[in-house]
Amino acid sequence: MIRARVTVTLKNGVLDPQGKAIEGALSALGFGDVAAVRQGKVFDIEMEGSDRARAAAELKAMCEKLLANTVIEDYAVEIG
Amino acid sequence: MIRARVTVTLKNGVLDPQGKAIEGALSALGFGDVAAVRQGKVFDIEMEGSDRARAAAELKAMCEKLLANTVIEDYAVEIG
Repeated sequence: MIRARVTVTLKNGVLDPQGKAIEGALSALGFGDVAAVRQGKVFDIEMEGSDRARAAAELKAMCEKLLANTVIEDYAVEIG
Repeated sequence: MIRARVTVTLKNGVLDPQGKAIEGALSALGFGDVAAVRQGKVFDIEMEGSDRARAAAELKAMCEKLLANTVIEDYAVEIG
């Protein structure tokens, strides 16, 4: 069993209204030191097998096909 | 400027219908090795100042008050 974590974040320059809303809410709660917040997604994926190279290739394909919108998002894969 | 990443994930045992949907979609796309998917959130936060201990304490408070629902979610803070 291989466990991987895929992190999908918005590319720099892409507007993040959700992050801005969180930034405003933190500020309203008294966290005045917060300069910027950007929100992303994380996927914890368990895969059958033990071939890490194969898993890495499959995870990259999953990101390209489903998990990330590569026009506006970056992804990072960590195999744990 | 301190940059931190907060990762919020569902606790074990909490149902994750979104993760299940992604699991089904990956399976339908031909990724047969996927055994389980759980989705979480990630927040990239920039904070003013350079006091890492203070930032760590503030980030913990942000998680408890806003970023995570600690009844059903766990959080992890990494200061980069």
